Amino acid sequence: MKQKITIALDAMGGDAAPKIVVAGANIARERLPHVEFLMVGRAAEVEPLLDKKEKLKAVTTFIHTDDVVRADERPAIALRSGRNSSMRLAINAVKDGRAHGVVSAGNTGALMAMSKFVLKTLPGVSRPAIASYFPTLNGEMVMLDLGANISCDAENIVDFAIMGNAFARSILGIADPSYGILNVGSEEIKGHEYLHDASAILRTVKLPGRFHGFIEGDDIAKGTVDVVVTDGFTGNVALKTAEGTAKLFNEFLRQTFRSSTLASVGYVLARPALRMLRKRIDPRRYNGAMFLGLNGIAVKSHGGTDALGFANAIDVAVDLNRQDIISKIELGIAALHRDTTSDSAQVVAG
Amino acid sequence: MKQKITIALDAMGGDAAPKIVVAGANIARERLPHVEFLMVGRAAEVEPLLDKKEKLKAVTTFIHTDDVVRADERPAIALRSGRNSSMRLAINAVKDGRAHGVVSAGNTGALMAMSKFVLKTLPGVSRPAIASYFPTLNGEMVMLDLGANISCDAENIVDFAIMGNAFARSILGIADPSYGILNVGSEEIKGHEYLHDASAILRTVKLPGRFHGFIEGDDIAKGTVDVVVTDGFTGNVALKTAEGTAKLFNEFLRQTFRSSTLASVGYVLARPALRMLRKRIDPRRYNGAMFLGLNGIAVKSHGGTDALGFANAIDVAVDLNRQDIISKIELGIAALHRDTTSDSAQVVAG
Repeated sequence: MKQKITIALDAMGGDAAPKIVVAGANIARERLPHVEFLMVGRAAEVEPLLDKKEKLKAVTTFIHTDDVVRADERPAIALRSGRNSSMRLAINAVKDGRAHGVVSAGNTGALMAMSKFVLKTLPGVSRPAIASYFPTLNGEMVMLDLGANISCDAENIVDFAIMGNAFARSILGIADPSYGILNVGSEEIKGHEYLHDASAILRTVKLPGRFHGFIEGDDIAKGTVDVVVTDGFTGNVALKTAEGTAKLFNEFLRQTFRSSTLASVGYVLARPALRMLRKRIDPRRYNGAMFLGLNGIAVKSHGGTDALGFANAIDVAVDLNRQDIISKIELGIAALHRDTTSDSAQVVAG
Repeated sequence: MKQKITIALDAMGGDAAPKIVVAGANIARERLPHVEFLMVGRAAEVEPLLDKKEKLKAVTTFIHTDDVVRADERPAIALRSGRNSSMRLAINAVKDGRAHGVVSAGNTGALMAMSKFVLKTLPGVSRPAIASYFPTLNGEMVMLDLGANISCDAENIVDFAIMGNAFARSILGIADPSYGILNVGSEEIKGHEYLHDASAILRTVKLPGRFHGFIEGDDIAKGTVDVVVTDGFTGNVALKTAEGTAKLFNEFLRQTFRSSTLASVGYVLARPALRMLRKRIDPRRYNGAMFLGLNGIAVKSHGGTDALGFANAIDVAVDLNRQDIISKIELGIAALHRDTTSDSAQVVAG
């Protein structure tokens, strides 16, 4: 029998909270019979929703708080003044052992700052990072950092590689993931020096997974590697550029099908297949970004998602717990420090 | 009557050279009656092709050289040992006033190094950059730097904004282009400090165009601004990420239309419209990246392009000459230096 898992939910985070949080939890409850919830939010708004879903209510512990972190609140302010916010109390539950992970669709910066403050960075990890997974020609891949660290050094990149590797094994179920460092390709331009330093370390140290070397922007969607490692500035730009391009293509396609009667008829015939395509690249399928490198599982849902997307973010938190991602990261980090403090230290220095 | 323009062509650059160069020049000749060519390459390979195209031969001056820059040659090596290469002699023709611009589909790094060495950077320009233009939801936009400068400072970014502006006016025909600096969006993470310094300068100094401020990755395809300004590392990754995403979408669409008989019939009906779509986002339409900031027009065609794509790169070189992009850049740079040496100097310093 599977062990019971409790996921803490920030009921007030997200554009359509608490509605999508309660509805999302209800979808997750149907999918995941061994999961229980600890839901934090305003009783007046959340309880009427819970009352309508008896089965969900039966597996949910509700905690009331009036305080909510605003979507536009500065993280430092949220950290100082949001001690009783629904977000903070949900994170606290993970720290106290009352929950195995937290999911919030609220303010990303605040969730990151609070998670880091409450859960703490794992020993040996230089910096936590945000990771998520995406569709490729080859299946799926993981990319990090998506925005937690604007400027990085070689040590950060190596840590991200280890954490991304653990994420791919836990979420994508790939036993021996390949990973590459995002760089530019021309002969003349070989990219930042710290990326070369990171590459030298990854080539030398024995870590889980297979190091592919450098990759370029078009390798992301091609699925050349299972894990794309980059700094938070580049990762954030690449992620949003890909999203923007997908939207552009989608809109162009919509216009194309409307451009003639024949094309409209063609659209009607191809509609079931096109629906499958939409499902395949549905951003809700890929909802759930993880803050890697913390001593606890904190998953960020997209703020604009719906119930289905939120349920998927809960899935991610549950999978990461079942797959014990934190131990995987700890083992990788331990292997790195064992290796770099002995024979490979000169690589780091040189 | 329009003035005659001569474009120097590196006949040996590109995967399918000299065939696509001669065929591309022939397409351009039909489109552009006032353009003549100065073609440099191996006589034994180029002349038989020219002999088959009498009208093209009549407007082409051919210069023989045996030497060719290899596609994988390191730029520094090409610069030293390629003094008699087809690429170098074509660039020399611009320097000597025998041609109004040069087009090559050869080695990017070598073309950049040679163009910079021969044509020189314009006075007041901190660093040359590579720019190109792309389709958006709104029409088209210009992006730079696409890979010439891996690490940038505020001064570079400001110069790129001025040069991108001149490029958009010359190529896209936008009278008063808007421009924005590519950055990351979350509240917590505000991006690199030098981007904020550049933004402060652009807000203060009176330059051509409208400064929009910061934009994010998804704004690129959305067409939020006419000119996207970024460092060469981020620009290169964003460009290739967008290309990769477009290819992914295309392949998914192909698979979708093959997934059922109904979908295949739908495809057949929608085919004429889908062909229009393909034309709309045809990379050959957007072939022709310019090295901005040099005292001469040097256009890089994609190495894998065909004759139509190469003809489009010639179009770009001709347009940039007709629109006198170099004077536009000079005026912008002069305005910057006039302003920053007087009342706005404190912004640069602070």
